[in-house]
Amino acid sequence: MPQDIYDKIMMVAKRRGFIYPSFEIYGGIAGFYDYGPLGSQLKNNVENLWRRFYLLKDNCIEIATPTITLYEVLKASGHVEEFTDLTVDCGRCKRSYKVEDIIEKDLSVEQAIKEKKITCPTCGSALQDAHPVNLMFATTIGVGEGRKAFLRPETAQGIFTNFHLLYQYNRKKLPFGVVQIGKGYRNEISPRQGTLRQREFSMAEAEIFFDPKDKTHPYFDTIKDKELYLFDNEKEWKMSVADAVKKKIINNQALAYYIYLTQDFLLSAGVDPKKFRFRKHAADELAHYATECWDAELYSERFGWVECVGIADRSAYDLNAHIVSSSVDMYALRQFEEPREVTIKKVVPKMNILGPRFSGKAGKIKEQLELMETTTAKKITMTIDGESIDIPKDCYDIVEVKEKQIGEKFVPHVIEPSYGIDRILYFLLEHNYVEGKKKEEEYTILKLNPWVAPIKVGVFPLIGDDKLIRIAKEIDNDLRTTGIATFYDESGTIGRRYARMDEIGTPFCITVDHDSLTDNMVTIRDRDTTKQERKKIEDIPSYMRGKISF
Amino acid sequence: MPQDIYDKIMMVAKRRGFIYPSFEIYGGIAGFYDYGPLGSQLKNNVENLWRRFYLLKDNCIEIATPTITLYEVLKASGHVEEFTDLTVDCGRCKRSYKVEDIIEKDLSVEQAIKEKKITCPTCGSALQDAHPVNLMFATTIGVGEGRKAFLRPETAQGIFTNFHLLYQYNRKKLPFGVVQIGKGYRNEISPRQGTLRQREFSMAEAEIFFDPKDKTHPYFDTIKDKELYLFDNEKEWKMSVADAVKKKIINNQALAYYIYLTQDFLLSAGVDPKKFRFRKHAADELAHYATECWDAELYSERFGWVECVGIADRSAYDLNAHIVSSSVDMYALRQFEEPREVTIKKVVPKMNILGPRFSGKAGKIKEQLELMETTTAKKITMTIDGESIDIPKDCYDIVEVKEKQIGEKFVPHVIEPSYGIDRILYFLLEHNYVEGKKKEEEYTILKLNPWVAPIKVGVFPLIGDDKLIRIAKEIDNDLRTTGIATFYDESGTIGRRYARMDEIGTPFCITVDHDSLTDNMVTIRDRDTTKQERKKIEDIPSYMRGKISF
Repeated sequence: MPQDIYDKIMMVAKRRGFIYPSFEIYGGIAGFYDYGPLGSQLKNNVENLWRRFYLLKDNCIEIATPTITLYEVLKASGHVEEFTDLTVDCGRCKRSYKVEDIIEKDLSVEQAIKEKKITCPTCGSALQDAHPVNLMFATTIGVGEGRKAFLRPETAQGIFTNFHLLYQYNRKKLPFGVVQIGKGYRNEISPRQGTLRQREFSMAEAEIFFDPKDKTHPYFDTIKDKELYLFDNEKEWKMSVADAVKKKIINNQALAYYIYLTQDFLLSAGVDPKKFRFRKHAADELAHYATECWDAELYSERFGWVECVGIADRSAYDLNAHIVSSSVDMYALRQFEEPREVTIKKVVPKMNILGPRFSGKAGKIKEQLELMETTTAKKITMTIDGESIDIPKDCYDIVEVKEKQIGEKFVPHVIEPSYGIDRILYFLLEHNYVEGKKKEEEYTILKLNPWVAPIKVGVFPLIGDDKLIRIAKEIDNDLRTTGIATFYDESGTIGRRYARMDEIGTPFCITVDHDSLTDNMVTIRDRDTTKQERKKIEDIPSYMRGKISF
Repeated sequence: MPQDIYDKIMMVAKRRGFIYPSFEIYGGIAGFYDYGPLGSQLKNNVENLWRRFYLLKDNCIEIATPTITLYEVLKASGHVEEFTDLTVDCGRCKRSYKVEDIIEKDLSVEQAIKEKKITCPTCGSALQDAHPVNLMFATTIGVGEGRKAFLRPETAQGIFTNFHLLYQYNRKKLPFGVVQIGKGYRNEISPRQGTLRQREFSMAEAEIFFDPKDKTHPYFDTIKDKELYLFDNEKEWKMSVADAVKKKIINNQALAYYIYLTQDFLLSAGVDPKKFRFRKHAADELAHYATECWDAELYSERFGWVECVGIADRSAYDLNAHIVSSSVDMYALRQFEEPREVTIKKVVPKMNILGPRFSGKAGKIKEQLELMETTTAKKITMTIDGESIDIPKDCYDIVEVKEKQIGEKFVPHVIEPSYGIDRILYFLLEHNYVEGKKKEEEYTILKLNPWVAPIKVGVFPLIGDDKLIRIAKEIDNDLRTTGIATFYDESGTIGRRYARMDEIGTPFCITVDHDSLTDNMVTIRDRDTTKQERKKIEDIPSYMRGKISF
């Protein structure tokens, strides 16, 4: 069977140290991969390039929160109920399958199972009824019964649950963005698609908080004429950012700005623009928290179009959920031009009724009631310690009070670009993998962008002469000292050494030859043009720095 | 109650955005902390400085493996049996305690409980018998029964289980080092000591593989005269690296080299040399895998001396364990000067006996037997699929064969420096926290090293004049574009703005004043000297880069 591009890339990736299947010496398990010496540096470089875009260019702040997340957080965010895959189990061999993987989208699952249109893909037996399975990895904090927790399905909740502190850090001004780069987890039913569907993966997420009445973006004007690559599930086309907003193809400036920033980042990292587009989610595929979502899709010769980034308008969904569940004030304040005296209706809890009726919970109920906007409902329902409680009307008064207000409270909206780092890494390999022949031998070049390439410079003595070796090692050391990743190599012919570097995407090679001993110059070879130029040894570090820095 | 330094630092840390207790809006839980906008950058900077030492200076390679780890790996490594804390539970209130936390070291636990010398610290009732509790977080991969797994207690096992691939990457030459930076987990019984004892923490580990017959280090000569700060549980003293090895205080060059590298890193990061020492483990405190271990200890005004880095000689412990459990060839080859014909004794399995006797397991037994050195034992015991199996002598022959050998196989030894990043971050705050008064007001300065400081440069217009603001914003933008983290601030007096930057450790502040409009120069103020100098605006980015880069 001829290998396709995925097989070829994964073979090179393993042989040269980009990606290894995890736990291979114990038989391995689907959905887990290791980054080898080159893969880890490619990953670091991509993440740092991402920081350049989000932290330095867009002025977001970064935080880092635990991967283990308390049950309460993910209960409030809806993940305990909603982060599921519809699953069927085989009645005989007991294997489980994600329904989506084994049935065409427009068929009814129940009917297909009943009519035996689908049976177990492994043993052919009858399948049992479909049921949702939660995809979070569960664990317990502490001994004994301990506290229930999950490995986080996204980094975003760590940002939302700190909103009040981050809002304060930003001196109570909107908009502002908060990012997090780290592990996310999804206990896939039966992951296929190799490195594209991992159970433990690296994400880079940004949560940008906006006043819902003002979804403009301060830098919008600088990018409004740039073109976006769009796809509406029927046709692909190009359109300026400004037009996309004007024609309401993208709902607002803020969302459009981050769609463009995503495009700018991906193309800068080295994604092939011809294999890149944004696809708008249809209404029925939106996540439980999203009101609008665009996927940055990259094209793979094996897998077709694959989602690598989702840019969603999460509206006020998450902050609202945490305000309700935690009773903590996570509102923002929209300041008035000048203070106003206003008459407002307030919910005033009656502790003499709440106390006897709800005993231990009365205090928490009081807190939540006081946080509420007024209501005309016959009863209020709230969640206290995970339990849903009805609060009848006789437990509180609605009173009118006069207050001097400097502004009005509101729940910010959130735009979220969420990047799957591992998928992007795979696509950087696939999109930059170039096959050819040299002297009848297979020859591959990985045309990685110098900013993301794991090794920046190969350093070689032309032959194994001690004098050349000494100079080459000094150059190698000088480059490392200034922070440039090198690979020193004295084994094999120069052609062979170039070939090794081309295969792993090293953009430059420096060769020390006999002339170097007299003219203090070395040859620098460019991977993509194969052109060579001679440079003074003393200028090498600053020259190389210029070539590889963003 | 007067606050001690830990309280003060944690208060500043929360108020200014270094460290927040995790999940606080849901009541929080001991042992989990978030890094805020400044803490996350301090962490990134410290980790990247660490990479400069280990990847660029010491030429190690880096890998990145999953935090979720298969049961089989941690069974083989001994963590399932050994990664425990001796624990007692209260018979009445059911709380659990780590024995070490509630009993003096030299008392017998059983006796103390029996004689009621210790009772439950919470309710005073009798304690039940002490028993070991495993400290790994458990989870399950997949649906239904799935596969048993743990969150890794150390990053090291991800390196060991890839040794054969990494050895190949390094062209089968020793020594070489492999590092990993990432999360480790320890489900503490009842963590105290705040950020110093977290249940989820960041580690940076290096595993340096050596030929056990040659524990020299190629760069040893460059550091042999440097002085180490040593402590032998009785006295502290200084001694050169070379002397420590010569007098066998440190067993070998390799271990001594990494002890020094650790000292060099910590002092470069900004640890106070007067609050720093290496302490040698006593024989009874060594971890199950270690033959010699030194802790880098840092001194805290609240906590006393605290272990922040452990540098251990793990000998061949882990690789041996994985070779035995996985039957994968993870040996290294010590090449002979020239090939030798040797007579060796080999274990030759008898499949005609193994087959009927062990049926399904016979194949795996055969593989392990063939990997063995010869033996004179009456029977061989091996572990197959987690089960211990005795192989009687009639199942194999020992035969003499002639072989041409180019070298001999051996299991490399490992030196491991293992850094607790979170602890180091806390100590950078404590050691660099300087209190004083300015105009009768409390004034604190965080004297962080410019390399690790989260914000490198504060940029201010002297007053809210549009022309000054425009220039200041341009400088701010130019610095960000070249990768320098800044903080732009136009609010409050200049003194107030300096004070804010001093409190979070920003080493430099740039002020644009009216003269800047004519002379194109700005004032740069140094945090530690408070000296000011004027520089050309166009030279600012390269000047600042020189000041903050390592």
